[in-house]
Amino acid sequence: MACKLEIICVGNELLIGKTLNTNAQWIAKQATAHGAMVRRITVVSDDVNEIASAIREALKRKPRFIITTGGLGPTFDDKTLEGIAKALRRKLEINREALRMVSRKYEAYAKEQGVEKVELSPPRIKMATLPRKAKPIPNPVGTAPGVLIALKETTLLALPGVPLEMETIFRQSVEPLLKQVVGKSTFYERSIYVEGVMESSLAPLIDKVMKENDGIYVKSHPKGRESMPHIELHFSISADEAGKADEKLQRAIRQLSSELAKIGGKVISGELS
Amino acid sequence: MACKLEIICVGNELLIGKTLNTNAQWIAKQATAHGAMVRRITVVSDDVNEIASAIREALKRKPRFIITTGGLGPTFDDKTLEGIAKALRRKLEINREALRMVSRKYEAYAKEQGVEKVELSPPRIKMATLPRKAKPIPNPVGTAPGVLIALKETTLLALPGVPLEMETIFRQSVEPLLKQVVGKSTFYERSIYVEGVMESSLAPLIDKVMKENDGIYVKSHPKGRESMPHIELHFSISADEAGKADEKLQRAIRQLSSELAKIGGKVISGELS
Repeated sequence: MACKLEIICVGNELLIGKTLNTNAQWIAKQATAHGAMVRRITVVSDDVNEIASAIREALKRKPRFIITTGGLGPTFDDKTLEGIAKALRRKLEINREALRMVSRKYEAYAKEQGVEKVELSPPRIKMATLPRKAKPIPNPVGTAPGVLIALKETTLLALPGVPLEMETIFRQSVEPLLKQVVGKSTFYERSIYVEGVMESSLAPLIDKVMKENDGIYVKSHPKGRESMPHIELHFSISADEAGKADEKLQRAIRQLSSELAKIGGKVISGELS
Repeated sequence: MACKLEIICVGNELLIGKTLNTNAQWIAKQATAHGAMVRRITVVSDDVNEIASAIREALKRKPRFIITTGGLGPTFDDKTLEGIAKALRRKLEINREALRMVSRKYEAYAKEQGVEKVELSPPRIKMATLPRKAKPIPNPVGTAPGVLIALKETTLLALPGVPLEMETIFRQSVEPLLKQVVGKSTFYERSIYVEGVMESSLAPLIDKVMKENDGIYVKSHPKGRESMPHIELHFSISADEAGKADEKLQRAIRQLSSELAKIGGKVISGELS
């Protein structure tokens, strides 16, 4: 059974094109490598209703995981938890475990700065205010905890938007969850690069090779122009065993390469040894 | 009236983390600069039902524009037009104008390669097979035409995924449409960088400045750690007149800078002259 996963990124900076969404790519790559199937990435603004509607829509599709990034911080426009609470019709309340995590952080900061204490002001308490029945996830490199909410069919994970914090929490707390659900299945991929064949001439060959190689997906990525083509052919498969996956990938690559040769195509790199 | 716009990116390569979604950022930046308001970015796989459902959901939110990228090419997994047709319950049919565009391309390629002709094979005719009542948009740098479908409240624009093709069509054919709808409104922005204040201490100051500066949006982007903070403060406003916008931005920046100084913050760059 495929372990479906959706990513929801929250942040105006993504919608005005100020920030390139490297978080989504990073999560997509990691999740795919661990055998999950990323079905959708949604980017919404720092708006409670937008966040809530994206969460609700994702839940309707029943993915095994929803991972959100961004909007967990102390400022007025960090609204992800409010959006999640709204989508789930749950109240927000101060979570004692989260508050302990946040308090400890500010105690450490006070020590570092040589002041007696850093007050737990409302913006700081906000980071420990979670939807009911949520579990805070430790944030080893930042202040705001991540948040886990286990629902009937879906586990919702809210991670910070700061890349280092998101990545650290993912490695420490999300990866083990994925592994538990997915088991051994992994994603294997390999690319070859072809010249001298137009993408439109390649199309029927790809169809043929995919039909004759069960589980193999081939996608062409044109890099040049149709008339002076330089095309990446990306082969992928999800499988439990690396050996078997590689064998299948190699067979598909060999078959497509020989089909290509017949119509004058030249594999310029990535050829099998 | 805000001109709302949604972006839908089609492509497995985005969902497996192989490709960074620079197209979405590029469109978001251009559209924002031209005064449109990007409300959502959705990434889906090369799957007809996924594409159709993303289109249907976007249409329900009634944006003025939906721009799709990717999935217009000749291979089996270029399914954007099939997905759009399904969402709109329209038949796909060979569009005569699009077929002329595609034919002319292959005539030129044949000449370039010194062959008599390049046959119009099914994968090539596919690029000219559009939902009913669609209009092809010329693609000056590639083969597959873009596609425009004017609906009651929304104009749907399908652009290729190859960045150069997408950008060229956007500049030539989408920008004029945006300008027509948006008028003169433009997005103005400016950032300052602050040290020595935790983001959680900044939060109430941002609230205050936003409340007292109508139309100004301030967003903090932490770059360091909460205990050793280095924060970008991004000020933005949508306005018709550059002069007035700049005046408002400057006033807000000045106010926030002086509030910051009171609590020991230091503006380290981006200060007003």
